[in-house]
Amino acid sequence: MSLGARKNLKARMSEEGLLIGVGARDALEARLIDRAGFDFVWSSSFDISAAHAVPDASLLSMTEYLDAARWMNEAIEIPVLADCDTGFGNVNNVVFAVQRFEDAGVAGACIEDKKFPKDTSLLAGGRQDLVSIEEFTGKIRAAVDARRSPDFVVVGRVEALIAGRGEDEALERAERYAEAGADAILIHSKARTPDEVVGFVRRWSARVPLVLIPTNYPTLTEEETSALGGKVKMVIYANQPVRAAVKAVEELLAEIKRARGIHTIDERMVPVSRIFELQDVASMKAAERKYLR
Amino acid sequence: MSLGARKNLKARMSEEGLLIGVGARDALEARLIDRAGFDFVWSSSFDISAAHAVPDASLLSMTEYLDAARWMNEAIEIPVLADCDTGFGNVNNVVFAVQRFEDAGVAGACIEDKKFPKDTSLLAGGRQDLVSIEEFTGKIRAAVDARRSPDFVVVGRVEALIAGRGEDEALERAERYAEAGADAILIHSKARTPDEVVGFVRRWSARVPLVLIPTNYPTLTEEETSALGGKVKMVIYANQPVRAAVKAVEELLAEIKRARGIHTIDERMVPVSRIFELQDVASMKAAERKYLR
Amino acid sequence: MSLGARKNLKARMSEEGLLIGVGARDALEARLIDRAGFDFVWSSSFDISAAHAVPDASLLSMTEYLDAARWMNEAIEIPVLADCDTGFGNVNNVVFAVQRFEDAGVAGACIEDKKFPKDTSLLAGGRQDLVSIEEFTGKIRAAVDARRSPDFVVVGRVEALIAGRGEDEALERAERYAEAGADAILIHSKARTPDEVVGFVRRWSARVPLVLIPTNYPTLTEEETSALGGKVKMVIYANQPVRAAVKAVEELLAEIKRARGIHTIDERMVPVSRIFELQDVASMKAAERKYLR
Amino acid sequence: MSLGARKNLKARMSEEGLLIGVGARDALEARLIDRAGFDFVWSSSFDISAAHAVPDASLLSMTEYLDAARWMNEAIEIPVLADCDTGFGNVNNVVFAVQRFEDAGVAGACIEDKKFPKDTSLLAGGRQDLVSIEEFTGKIRAAVDARRSPDFVVVGRVEALIAGRGEDEALERAERYAEAGADAILIHSKARTPDEVVGFVRRWSARVPLVLIPTNYPTLTEEETSALGGKVKMVIYANQPVRAAVKAVEELLAEIKRARGIHTIDERMVPVSRIFELQDVASMKAAERKYLR
Repeated sequence: MSLGARKNLKARMSEEGLLIGVGARDALEARLIDRAGFDFVWSSSFDISAAHAVPDASLLSMTEYLDAARWMNEAIEIPVLADCDTGFGNVNNVVFAVQRFEDAGVAGACIEDKKFPKDTSLLAGGRQDLVSIEEFTGKIRAAVDARRSPDFVVVGRVEALIAGRGEDEALERAERYAEAGADAILIHSKARTPDEVVGFVRRWSARVPLVLIPTNYPTLTEEETSALGGKVKMVIYANQPVRAAVKAVEELLAEIKRARGIHTIDERMVPVSRIFELQDVASMKAAERKYLR
Repeated sequence: MSLGARKNLKARMSEEGLLIGVGARDALEARLIDRAGFDFVWSSSFDISAAHAVPDASLLSMTEYLDAARWMNEAIEIPVLADCDTGFGNVNNVVFAVQRFEDAGVAGACIEDKKFPKDTSLLAGGRQDLVSIEEFTGKIRAAVDARRSPDFVVVGRVEALIAGRGEDEALERAERYAEAGADAILIHSKARTPDEVVGFVRRWSARVPLVLIPTNYPTLTEEETSALGGKVKMVIYANQPVRAAVKAVEELLAEIKRARGIHTIDERMVPVSRIFELQDVASMKAAERKYLR
Repeated sequence: MSLGARKNLKARMSEEGLLIGVGARDALEARLIDRAGFDFVWSSSFDISAAHAVPDASLLSMTEYLDAARWMNEAIEIPVLADCDTGFGNVNNVVFAVQRFEDAGVAGACIEDKKFPKDTSLLAGGRQDLVSIEEFTGKIRAAVDARRSPDFVVVGRVEALIAGRGEDEALERAERYAEAGADAILIHSKARTPDEVVGFVRRWSARVPLVLIPTNYPTLTEEETSALGGKVKMVIYANQPVRAAVKAVEELLAEIKRARGIHTIDERMVPVSRIFELQDVASMKAAERKYLR
Repeated sequence: MSLGARKNLKARMSEEGLLIGVGARDALEARLIDRAGFDFVWSSSFDISAAHAVPDASLLSMTEYLDAARWMNEAIEIPVLADCDTGFGNVNNVVFAVQRFEDAGVAGACIEDKKFPKDTSLLAGGRQDLVSIEEFTGKIRAAVDARRSPDFVVVGRVEALIAGRGEDEALERAERYAEAGADAILIHSKARTPDEVVGFVRRWSARVPLVLIPTNYPTLTEEETSALGGKVKMVIYANQPVRAAVKAVEELLAEIKRARGIHTIDERMVPVSRIFELQDVASMKAAERKYLR
């Protein structure tokens, strides 16, 4: 962790170019994302819930999300943007969460306008009830006033498209959240093509930058996103690592069962020495040589 | 979790056949292992340390291992056997650990005869100092007396081969640990062929069953292990899932960087709906239909 | 902890006589309550929040309450009844909570009919909004169906008097919650005399036993409560220990400041050896003598 | 918490006058200590172990101590000095601990030269084995090099008097630890009079400031300590609050048992409203008025 990392996210938001973040389930995935050269880690409530084998529906508490974000932050040089769901309750919970995540060295927090307890956004038939604009702008203002440093990024997440409320309401909400002090607006969509999001981006006032999560519309590339004209500043690939990991582990386990042993799976895995590298064993061994008597 | 699961491990140890366990880094991996049909989950200190991006060298505390084991146990029907390293200190720590892991519903605990703080067994140049036989038999006796139910399995792990102490000392230690009350002996080896372990098995008195971790000698299949004559009761594939996950995630991230988007990676991942299944969203939705007003 | 302790609470609820519980802020207070001869410990959200210096308003999460209850339970022989606030969200959160608290060895859980995030009941001007009867009976049914053993006690807490809804609604709610499966009804009142609660008790159908928390009406003694005719089964002194501890510590600190030293305070404190007894150092030392080499 | 608080402790150590710290078991006690006007809080391993009803013998892990220190730090304006026992293992554990405590916003850490797992210093018949001077100076150097800011205070605690090694060895150790980079030396004594410590102070080279914990020799007042000539910079009253709290709670519980009710104990407790103040409910209510819709 470096305290410089936090400032970096806010500062980089005013520079040229897209910032690309990837969702992590734990510190190990976060470190892989850092090593692969991405700009920030998204401590994803979906991924962290999955790691605990629990639905992403406000069952894990702020405590688990905070712990996970803290371990991620300790493991990487790039900033962590924390997925803080609804803020875990009302404005009091938002204030509490912002201060704890900021004190943990996290670079920013994203809160969304769904009701607590939330349901995950991409679930068919999920509960997608929104709080009123007034209630949510109260949360944004509380978050902004509660942060100890203006470098802590507050992202307001608009779920109006997810909830089927239409583009007009989505734009209205985004505008109001930006007005209330959000540093960026995450506009979420579960449409299977980019059209819905692109339509929103085109009409957006550009008061603050936008953030996209193209899980359901993967055909929108970074090149195309950049071509939208600079209103979009961040793209988050929110859950691809955990999904790739599950596929690999499922196939590995099936092969072990089939072969009745681990003699056929070498090519499916990194060597143990690669895990040592990711754990930074070398630094520890250097410290032992220097200090251990 | 079911309380029956705990008894199951002890009971199954006296039945015919090999029990196959797989190491997990978190509840999600544990659930995949359960679904794949294995007999138990090994809450591996190496894997859990890797998940936190920290060396497997007694840096994470009992607390993190206990939390991880508890989440795993809640997520699966098969039993969890907890990798408890050295017992986290002296006999007092062993007593404390055994009672906490047992109260968490875990089926058993494995403690090893290395000094605290330990170093991971497969690391070239790692510190592999052993405690005396007297000290370790004290720990085994303390563990056995501290458990609340005789169904809680206590495994004594012999690191004499890892430490280069030779087969005679390994056998002596194993015998003494069994005599002190261990329900099974885990004999660990980092030789690149099965010969070392097979030699040990052949000379073993069979006072209690043996447990093997064939990470470094993967050519020893389950069929060959069974052919050794029934002295080996458990085989643990301790770290293969996390190594397969790292490979898959590294390759995925490299492809996203190359393609500048997520439009080329569908075949590398399970769909989001598969994660919903692993989170058991369906049960939650059924409860909502039944109880939510 | 003993598994017998859990059954004990449910079983004792059908025996003669009042059960007296006291609220604890941590395991140390729980042990003092146990040693003093009370029947159970109330793992109080007010006290646990106070221990963290945080308002009792759903800021601490289920995780902190569960951890606190688990440490208490490990420290005592008598059962723990867990104050689970609103159940930490909706029915899904209730199911999640009941299973986690039960797996922690806790004897029972109390959930209340306020909206999440709640405000503490005794606060002048606190938010005391109730959920509908339908919503709360759904929670009770979910809790009852989710428990793994019928010995786990589910208490439904009626906040209608606190919320100023009147005795009729309080009785209606209590009846419906009992019908939904609650093992007992906690009827809460902040009136400064026992009249309000006594009125409720007199009209109560006695379908299930009642639980009282006489913080605000301390003149209702156990003798008088028993004289109400057996409908009241439990009395909880929910926050007196933490309030006595604060008074003692405030006065101690003031004296240290005044005296500029600790030479005048011996009579205000137990000796260090008493803390050793409460930590059960003697058992640890006995284990060392037996096992430590 | 304020980041200024951390710098404050290091800076104040070079100012005139004694700094007085008091040991806390949790955030509530820490807040009382802050409100009473003391200079810093000692997150005491003895007190935190007592709060968990567990012996102070390396049974609780770094995780519980870190969590407790973090909650304390969030609750107060004055700095927290963390009692880090032996550093929780070897030099690797020290590096790990220093970085985690510093990232938690704690002002400094004290590590002692006993062997892990330690026994509490004041226990008659406790294990008081010391590590070698070489081993411990390695820990001090590791701690100093691992901190991210020179404002983080590293205190080296000398247990040579506790272990009966005599004044010469105590002085030798203190000198060597200071030479290795310790910002201060805590010289601990369990003698029943101040003579032992005063003897040490008189011969001390004053290379760095000293810290005293006069639990066993309470007759040494602050005035007398100051009269020793400025070599002593900090005095810690390490466990008086928890001992006063236990006395008060024991007496309260006895009275409740005797009176069979809570009608006789009002004068033993602060009112509920005082707990609300300590929880800072007023700030939360102000935020509600401002932001809650």
